[in-house]
Amino acid sequence: MRVGMIGLGKMGLNLTKNMLRNGIEVVGFDLAKDNVAAAKEAGATPASTLEDMISKLDTPRIAWLMLPAGKPTDATIQQLANTLDKGDIVVDGGNSFYKDSLRHNHILTGAGIKFFDCGTSGGQNGALNGGNFMIGGDDGDMFDEYLRPVFELVSEPDGFLYTGKAGSGHYLKMVHNGIEYGMMEAIGEGFDVLENSDYNYDNEAVAKLWNHGSVVRSWLMELAEDAFAKDPKLDDLLGRMHSSGEGQWTLQESLDMAVPTPVIALSLMMRYESMRDADNNFTGKVVAALRNGFGGHAVDKK
Amino acid sequence: MRVGMIGLGKMGLNLTKNMLRNGIEVVGFDLAKDNVAAAKEAGATPASTLEDMISKLDTPRIAWLMLPAGKPTDATIQQLANTLDKGDIVVDGGNSFYKDSLRHNHILTGAGIKFFDCGTSGGQNGALNGGNFMIGGDDGDMFDEYLRPVFELVSEPDGFLYTGKAGSGHYLKMVHNGIEYGMMEAIGEGFDVLENSDYNYDNEAVAKLWNHGSVVRSWLMELAEDAFAKDPKLDDLLGRMHSSGEGQWTLQESLDMAVPTPVIALSLMMRYESMRDADNNFTGKVVAALRNGFGGHAVDKK
Repeated sequence: MRVGMIGLGKMGLNLTKNMLRNGIEVVGFDLAKDNVAAAKEAGATPASTLEDMISKLDTPRIAWLMLPAGKPTDATIQQLANTLDKGDIVVDGGNSFYKDSLRHNHILTGAGIKFFDCGTSGGQNGALNGGNFMIGGDDGDMFDEYLRPVFELVSEPDGFLYTGKAGSGHYLKMVHNGIEYGMMEAIGEGFDVLENSDYNYDNEAVAKLWNHGSVVRSWLMELAEDAFAKDPKLDDLLGRMHSSGEGQWTLQESLDMAVPTPVIALSLMMRYESMRDADNNFTGKVVAALRNGFGGHAVDKK
Repeated sequence: MRVGMIGLGKMGLNLTKNMLRNGIEVVGFDLAKDNVAAAKEAGATPASTLEDMISKLDTPRIAWLMLPAGKPTDATIQQLANTLDKGDIVVDGGNSFYKDSLRHNHILTGAGIKFFDCGTSGGQNGALNGGNFMIGGDDGDMFDEYLRPVFELVSEPDGFLYTGKAGSGHYLKMVHNGIEYGMMEAIGEGFDVLENSDYNYDNEAVAKLWNHGSVVRSWLMELAEDAFAKDPKLDDLLGRMHSSGEGQWTLQESLDMAVPTPVIALSLMMRYESMRDADNNFTGKVVAALRNGFGGHAVDKK
């Protein structure tokens, strides 16, 4: 088996190493030459351009994208549509919005190329040692013949699922991340209550306890345990919760379908809120002005 | 070791069996004679009254409550305060509100009795095969001498924690359950989005996949997998989410401290909302009336 890996950042490089360790040959391409060099050092065949990568693959070629969602993925899909042959295979292992994947599917299918949208979970460690994959794509037979053997090797046992028609893999990953937002916010809020209480809890000990037989035991709680072990009060961190789109997409989808998802919605809003300070919180300024207006309540001025 | 178990319902009986299996003698009491008979059959010494139970214990006696929070626990604590001797030990293993536990601590301490508030997690299976316990109580030395050996035997490995002064055990369990509310609601919302999408997901397969290497892998997701295995669309269930207090207490506590916990709050509100139908949803009636009032929008009448 031979795979062309496009995108050799943290996730792509770890997945490359995972493949190589499991006897899958990898031809690696990345716009950043350092990343290509790292893949070469890990045992991959380096490619200097996308065309060079394609020339080094057997047909049907498997081109596997591990790129940031949006423009980098869009541009590469278009380039692959122009360069690959009929019957070749494209796997988008990045976190594309499923509607973009439907568009990519349309473009590639129009060129006779098979497209699979693959949500990848499990983080960097999963990519390296056994990932979690949810894969959509219209041609289930092609999946079984060419991709299933690859996923058998690079997944956690039972850690991949062919989910049906195009878009369903990235859709499932989107919802997975929506759930993840809610679970993480709930865990954060709980420790916030503990931290503000009159009791003196050892956060690491609490997370460790909860990972041994409690109802909330989970990988996220294990990550909390690790984080508190390194920094018991997380003093080194700022409380800014960045987000990369999938929570927002889940909320958009739930709005389109009129499905109530208040916890996922609030988890997302709390992330936005966390990125603000008092100087750019316009809601806060408006409410402060109104309270002052009707009740003469004090406002904090610059 | 010998423990007097008060309350032999699902949790108390399972914990009794757990103790017996691990060589701890149990004297069991319950107002329901059937429950006492079940404990006797499991190997416990039956007690016909609380006084009978107390008479069958060695000093310092350990009286362990596994009763519903509120009145049953309150009444029993008062009775124990009147009956036990100085130096005896009371463990409240139920889900009491921590402020009630502080009151119980005051009552029992006034009578020279040692009190420990013990949050119990892990469900019925945990109670039977290895539970998760968070235990507060002012006398750490008594805990170490008389209770630690018991918890070593009945807990999941690493599954108990002495959390410090009185109230801290039930407080921690309260927050644990608040987190649990948020995690469960997030999981519910995610599957709701999937169920309403244009894709046809196999809920059991999705939950199983997510339990093998994904970021949201958790015991709750394993329980979802089990539930979908038995009933793929949960057709046999109504979507009413009962609640038994601890989410509400977590929210009350966060309000008292002005700690923002919107996800825990919304999880609780969604439980309340789920108990309503259109006929008892007064918010819904008011909003429908207002929409009709300003815009002539249709209302659904009885």
